[in-house]
Amino acid sequence: MTSSASTRQPEIRKDAVFNRFVIFSPARSRRPSDFKSHSPTKSPNPNPKHLSCPFCLGREHDCAPEIFRIPRDTDDWKIRVIENLYPAVRRDLEPSSCCEGVVTGFGFHDVVIETPVHGIHLPDLSQAEVGEVVLAYKERVCQLAKNGLLEYVQVFKNYGASAGASMTHSHSQIIGLPLVPPTVSARLDSLKEVFDKSGKCGLCEASSEDILINESNYFLAIVPFAASFPFEVWIVPREHTSYFHDLNEQKAMDFGGLLKLILTKLSKQLNDPPYNFMIHSSPFHLPPSHLPFAHWFMQIVPQLNVVGGFEIGSGCYINPVFPEDAAKVLREVHCT
Amino acid sequence: MTSSASTRQPEIRKDAVFNRFVIFSPARSRRPSDFKSHSPTKSPNPNPKHLSCPFCLGREHDCAPEIFRIPRDTDDWKIRVIENLYPAVRRDLEPSSCCEGVVTGFGFHDVVIETPVHGIHLPDLSQAEVGEVVLAYKERVCQLAKNGLLEYVQVFKNYGASAGASMTHSHSQIIGLPLVPPTVSARLDSLKEVFDKSGKCGLCEASSEDILINESNYFLAIVPFAASFPFEVWIVPREHTSYFHDLNEQKAMDFGGLLKLILTKLSKQLNDPPYNFMIHSSPFHLPPSHLPFAHWFMQIVPQLNVVGGFEIGSGCYINPVFPEDAAKVLREVHCT
Ligand SMILES: Nc1ncnc2c1ncn2[C@@H]1O[C@H](COP(=O)(O)OP(=O)(O)O[C@H]2O[C@H](CO)[C@@H](O)[C@H](O)[C@H]2O)[C@@H](O)[C@H]1O
Ligand SMILES: Nc1ncnc2c1ncn2[C@@H]1O[C@H](COP(=O)(O)OP(=O)(O)O[C@H]2O[C@H](CO)[C@@H](O)[C@H](O)[C@H]2O)[C@@H](O)[C@H]1O
Repeated sequence: MTSSASTRQPEIRKDAVFNRFVIFSPARSRRPSDFKSHSPTKSPNPNPKHLSCPFCLGREHDCAPEIFRIPRDTDDWKIRVIENLYPAVRRDLEPSSCCEGVVTGFGFHDVVIETPVHGIHLPDLSQAEVGEVVLAYKERVCQLAKNGLLEYVQVFKNYGASAGASMTHSHSQIIGLPLVPPTVSARLDSLKEVFDKSGKCGLCEASSEDILINESNYFLAIVPFAASFPFEVWIVPREHTSYFHDLNEQKAMDFGGLLKLILTKLSKQLNDPPYNFMIHSSPFHLPPSHLPFAHWFMQIVPQLNVVGGFEIGSGCYINPVFPEDAAKVLREVHCT
Repeated sequence: MTSSASTRQPEIRKDAVFNRFVIFSPARSRRPSDFKSHSPTKSPNPNPKHLSCPFCLGREHDCAPEIFRIPRDTDDWKIRVIENLYPAVRRDLEPSSCCEGVVTGFGFHDVVIETPVHGIHLPDLSQAEVGEVVLAYKERVCQLAKNGLLEYVQVFKNYGASAGASMTHSHSQIIGLPLVPPTVSARLDSLKEVFDKSGKCGLCEASSEDILINESNYFLAIVPFAASFPFEVWIVPREHTSYFHDLNEQKAMDFGGLLKLILTKLSKQLNDPPYNFMIHSSPFHLPPSHLPFAHWFMQIVPQLNVVGGFEIGSGCYINPVFPEDAAKVLREVHCT
């Protein structure tokens, strides 16, 4: 950060999508730490004995059942979508209606193996290969949408131990739930409020020059105006679209290119940080009146800070890096 | 966990206080990890060179200004409440009203040094000493309540690097905000919903035998019915009370004893885990109609798991330990 940025006065901004206050406080980044080897940006080294990795090519029999592979009908797969062997929710349970605050743990929990090769990470793949991974997400979400018993699907990725990953082989996950999470309803309520006030979709309007990092034909990559996390990035479709899984092949390839670029930039600028990404799409059974303000996007969060008691308690976040500063840095990272 | 617990089928419960779904899935705890030395329950060792710790007795000049000490007017203090040297919000800024989603970073950010001695942690103190720390929180919150410009105060503690702590010397923090965090409003809305349906306060009714850990004269320690985190504990006043800072000396001492007991049990059972605790009190300017369902409590969260993309994305949590099982374990821990 420039010295002017680090002496800038703190500011509290409201995130109109997640309905959350974020305190921007550059001075916080100067506070000392007396914990030894406290380097949250570094994940522990992955186990080099990847011979035992069930996600590698040739180890398919060590995995839970496959749902599909790409390409189909070949041993030489590029991507596999499989059941999670230790699922949080189970496809073999009877769904139930809510009784005294409890439902059965019915749902779908899948893993997307993004490459057959251990040690290759998502941004190491070509643009077209990242696009194929995005299309695999889309295909699986479409299947889950047809199930009829599910209300919401969360696509997400954990990279690095401090971002929660337990497996090092490049993968992401898809969880289909029989209910709409209150956080998702709250996001739509916030966007409705913006729409009711301004007549515009909050995400169509989310971008401005100072927070833009990169753009492609169909997408913008920005640091949101009230980013909860330092160097948080959103990839937002330019065109108003409510559902991620409505994405066509051309757009998926375009998205793949931008995602690859942003992940490469984050890795370069922040020294290969652990990160999470999440696709924020809309519940399957959205009332048509909600379509004008429901706009899907991907949120990418490098895990540089540990969330503490203030954030858990108040739901407000402290971010030492102003979004304009983070966007400028990421805009200027040079990737060859 | 007993083997019956770990084969129990997953269940989704709704937390009626935080309005959040939690997936209880014991099978999750069996999933492997191929990250080396991935032991989130262990914080890195604190720096033994505590000669440089500004929170130690005799190093008062290395700290930001003191607000008060206990006992008053003595060099031989037991507790100090000081300004945070790297504050997230600043007491010297002009408060402003919200303009296009931005307010100035006005607010108060203090540190409570819980003991003059480095290496002594909160549960190492006597019951009366823990009670004194609780009274110091109360006194500071009362001062902030009188300020007139603040709406909400968050008291919290981070213990251990994986819980966000940057300083090892035993301390907690208090942040006073000029606004009510939406998460706090949402908590009250959820409790209002319970009240409107049942005519009862959700927290007066939160306890049942199977989730009770311990009780004191004035408080109950429970694992909440839909705990988001494994071994999460709430300490709840038995008597319906909206504000933490209405606590009197007798109740503070009683609370201190129960807090010491629970922290000791968590440390013993979970091998000195990093943890956060948060006091969930009510906004200062609560409409009187909200008093019947606003009930303060303390939430204690051992940091055993890393939150991943599913939780960040959906706001739903995955907890491998059923609350009844966690409560049983904690009930039975023997502390001498
Ligand atoms: N042979 C096999 N066949 C099929 N699947 C296999 C398998 N071996 C392992 N798996 C599954 O592969 C997944 C790997 O997922 P990640 O590394 O992204 O994180 P994980 O889900 O463990 O937990 C992180 O993400 C979740 C959700 O965000 C958080 O709850 C949690 O705290 C955080 O650590 C695991 O869910 C595991 O069950
Ligand atoms: N000489 C001195 N005088 C006065 N104060 C001093 C001081 N030296 C240091 N301090 C302050 O002491 C505090 C120690 O606090 P903690 O160890 O609980 O965590 P910290 O606030 O750093 O961040 C954690 O908690 C916050 C809030 O939850 C999260 O935002 C963050 O990510 C997480 O790491 C720091 O806030 C620091 O500014």
